[in-house]
Amino acid sequence: MSFITLTTDFGIKDGNVGVMKGVIWSIAGDVPIADISHMIRPQDIAEAALVLARSAPYFPPGSIHVVVVDPGVGTDRRAIAARLGSHYFVCPDNGVLTLLLERVERENGPIHIVHLDKPRYWRPEVSHVFHGRDIFSPVAAHLARGVPLADLGSPIFDPVRLPPRRPTRLPGRLVGEIIHVDHFGNLSSNIYQEDLEGQLVIAVRLRGVEIRRLVKSFGERPPGELVALIGSTGNLIVAAVNDNAAARLGANAGDRMEVEFESPGEDG
Amino acid sequence: MSFITLTTDFGIKDGNVGVMKGVIWSIAGDVPIADISHMIRPQDIAEAALVLARSAPYFPPGSIHVVVVDPGVGTDRRAIAARLGSHYFVCPDNGVLTLLLERVERENGPIHIVHLDKPRYWRPEVSHVFHGRDIFSPVAAHLARGVPLADLGSPIFDPVRLPPRRPTRLPGRLVGEIIHVDHFGNLSSNIYQEDLEGQLVIAVRLRGVEIRRLVKSFGERPPGELVALIGSTGNLIVAAVNDNAAARLGANAGDRMEVEFESPGEDG
Amino acid sequence: MSFITLTTDFGIKDGNVGVMKGVIWSIAGDVPIADISHMIRPQDIAEAALVLARSAPYFPPGSIHVVVVDPGVGTDRRAIAARLGSHYFVCPDNGVLTLLLERVERENGPIHIVHLDKPRYWRPEVSHVFHGRDIFSPVAAHLARGVPLADLGSPIFDPVRLPPRRPTRLPGRLVGEIIHVDHFGNLSSNIYQEDLEGQLVIAVRLRGVEIRRLVKSFGERPPGELVALIGSTGNLIVAAVNDNAAARLGANAGDRMEVEFESPGEDG
Repeated sequence: MSFITLTTDFGIKDGNVGVMKGVIWSIAGDVPIADISHMIRPQDIAEAALVLARSAPYFPPGSIHVVVVDPGVGTDRRAIAARLGSHYFVCPDNGVLTLLLERVERENGPIHIVHLDKPRYWRPEVSHVFHGRDIFSPVAAHLARGVPLADLGSPIFDPVRLPPRRPTRLPGRLVGEIIHVDHFGNLSSNIYQEDLEGQLVIAVRLRGVEIRRLVKSFGERPPGELVALIGSTGNLIVAAVNDNAAARLGANAGDRMEVEFESPGEDG
Repeated sequence: MSFITLTTDFGIKDGNVGVMKGVIWSIAGDVPIADISHMIRPQDIAEAALVLARSAPYFPPGSIHVVVVDPGVGTDRRAIAARLGSHYFVCPDNGVLTLLLERVERENGPIHIVHLDKPRYWRPEVSHVFHGRDIFSPVAAHLARGVPLADLGSPIFDPVRLPPRRPTRLPGRLVGEIIHVDHFGNLSSNIYQEDLEGQLVIAVRLRGVEIRRLVKSFGERPPGELVALIGSTGNLIVAAVNDNAAARLGANAGDRMEVEFESPGEDG
Repeated sequence: MSFITLTTDFGIKDGNVGVMKGVIWSIAGDVPIADISHMIRPQDIAEAALVLARSAPYFPPGSIHVVVVDPGVGTDRRAIAARLGSHYFVCPDNGVLTLLLERVERENGPIHIVHLDKPRYWRPEVSHVFHGRDIFSPVAAHLARGVPLADLGSPIFDPVRLPPRRPTRLPGRLVGEIIHVDHFGNLSSNIYQEDLEGQLVIAVRLRGVEIRRLVKSFGERPPGELVALIGSTGNLIVAAVNDNAAARLGANAGDRMEVEFESPGEDG
């Protein structure tokens, strides 16, 4: 059994998400479809890449993930389908798979990517502005029905990748940035648990405030207090207990977030 | 196999959409349900009609579309179910089917409409304010289970229709209006591709700006530039590349949008 | 056949709802899932309790309702699963079941609650901040697959309850409060139809305005007029016909709403 997920910047008011589901069910009528997000910031490929990498792996192996954040629609940017590890992806070739691709490369998992150049798996008429409806949805539905990835297009080996956003390591410090502000106003950074291993965090600094030490959960501190902790996705996050840290600090994606470690021999 | 779609102005925070799905699954437990939109502007029948006409046809033949934008709930406005072409609709009789009805009439497709006057297909108690839960959802579920349309109510031949919103043709020009502002801020007009056939568009004008010629896709112009093009629904739209045209121009539904054609013998 | 519903304060942009669906389908691949709401105000347990109590009962008997409004995640608040009447619930033990629990107690229905203390039904690694993914979703999926409630944890008899919010009865009057503002701006109170039985309502007062008598449906009065009526959930509500009463009156949850009854022998 296959599952299909949808991640787009379409919003939820205009019916375009429904259109994609209609196209999918017209080809593969028995496939369950889950929305991951339709509120990706318009044209924000990096945000789509992050949300996708955090969500897609929790679906069953063999799931097919359609991603339509596609500022280049109608230009010569390629449409692709990919097998990365045990999951399938159908999307524009604009870097939206970068994080998942890097993860599967680190794990030496299977990677197969094809350029979607076989119109027989598309809708008969393809618009210049809505490939989600005309190419990505029908291709995903055909995959769900058992069409092999290799039949959908010609192999490619040079998918577009987003530039890396790794933190900078300085003596006793790590300088990263906010990469995501979630619905609660929690601030997620590009500093990961593994970046902190073997070292004791003395302070996290951002937007002119300093947070001492890390906590394990929100509930360790009173409501309203700023805390730094490792979030459920393995990132260092800054949050305000039962409050909105982004609003409190006026913080946005791209803002600097810095970690200070205990010096060897220091008592903190 | 049947599919049910939902289009409402209920929003997504209060649980009313969930209630409708619960009622449907209590009667027809195996039917997949897709949301088309729950963010229709409150009581905006014209917007619901437009979003429905753009989305419903992409679902498989035999799909059942429930529409609950219902300012007249609890008055003597009729509740109806309709077969229009190969799709079914369950909704208040307030004009929300106008565009689909006109399309099926142009194509000489089958049209059957019944007034829902058979309470045995409703919930046992019917509130005065939530027929989506008490009438439309159970009727749709019974349709999905195979109850014939003719059993659900008495035939009617005079469904309510919205007044037409066609553009005005003047010498060398077509004067229309914005009928929809989408999530991206793209401005959709009531001027369709077929209205432009056989003529060369020199300029599109709205809100005091003039856009020269049409493009085929957003990517033909640099980010930020205003473009006019035929959208994926066949309407003439004005958009700002990777930006929000509605916000840029302060444009809203109802604003005038005008097309100027090349005069015969003119070189543009 | 089982159905699962989700009610959270996660919002819809970050992918967390998708993650929960992925986890559920990884364990119970054939279960249909419906969203009740993901727009509960962050950490607002009382709002979640209300929306849940209004929605869950409309799903088929045996449905499993997952609720994740969980300000205490990562502290020693208990995670629970419950059978209340013919429905199942999986949630933090923070009072979110209060209204449903009281209803089933009044009806002498079956009540079984267990403390989720059997990690074999959770994800292998449990984060300190996302039990919706790591505990509640997998437990719900195991329930859907037929694991008995009693196997999921140890029985408890002292679930946390929210403080009651009943109106105050004074001579000729009932003083309640607004408990919910819906998407349309309708104001729902903690005064129920049964609180009004056997008495004639002369006026409803709130925010300095007085509304004479009750109507049965919105359509009885002209657009814009304030009306008081019994809503589809049995609550006394104040609404503005085809308009937003909350915006008009600047009204919020917690505001006082008062009903005046006709005195015996008075003609009104």
